[in-house]
Amino acid sequence: MHRSRIAVVLIDHPEQSYDAAATFWAAAQGAQRQTDPEPPYESLARLPGNVALELQKTGSGTPPRIHLDLEADDVAAEVARLEGLGATVSERADGWVVMADPGGLVFCVVPVWTDRADFDRHATTWP
Amino acid sequence: MHRSRIAVVLIDHPEQSYDAAATFWAAAQGAQRQTDPEPPYESLARLPGNVALELQKTGSGTPPRIHLDLEADDVAAEVARLEGLGATVSERADGWVVMADPGGLVFCVVPVWTDRADFDRHATTWP
Repeated sequence: MHRSRIAVVLIDHPEQSYDAAATFWAAAQGAQRQTDPEPPYESLARLPGNVALELQKTGSGTPPRIHLDLEADDVAAEVARLEGLGATVSERADGWVVMADPGGLVFCVVPVWTDRADFDRHATTWP
Repeated sequence: MHRSRIAVVLIDHPEQSYDAAATFWAAAQGAQRQTDPEPPYESLARLPGNVALELQKTGSGTPPRIHLDLEADDVAAEVARLEGLGATVSERADGWVVMADPGGLVFCVVPVWTDRADFDRHATTWP
């Protein structure tokens, strides 16, 4: 058995539009831009249940988009479950996996990092 | 003064990929497809704080994407605030407005509909 939950909403912009978009979304949320981001990521705010709202500066070939991260306490098991449901693996990174839904929409499966108590509270257990 | 919050995450697919993607995301969340959706929308699940996870069947010219809805207790005031921060209005619909961030990413401003108590609890008040 393992558990997972939708845990991160990432607003992705290529370098060309990143700064203007990041400044906009920070002001739109009443948040401050991070002074010490971990490129390419910048934390913006937390939604209820500690779902993270993050900014990502992508490569120039990626149009502006939003993608979701699913947190899992067993990334390999969650990837296998989602493959069984029709998703495909695009890239296996160091500890996390980029996937695409049956229509090609990008999402990721990542280890638990937002908040352990909220993961325990909100994650679904898969047999 | 008015208030707003990020309240809806919409997974948008064109007709070609909609059914496969909707079936995938329902199973991925352990949810059932709706038997009585209100096209083009289908409710999938609620995230913490009653943030809604919705599916939308878009026109064939729209690639698969995710967009956010911001709920506001005064849609016109929220649109004006976001325009002042650099967003642009793409379309004024009946009661809600389609906007784009400074990089062209689509989002919407809509009236409060997810959950009034959670809106009161989580919305930010703007002067």
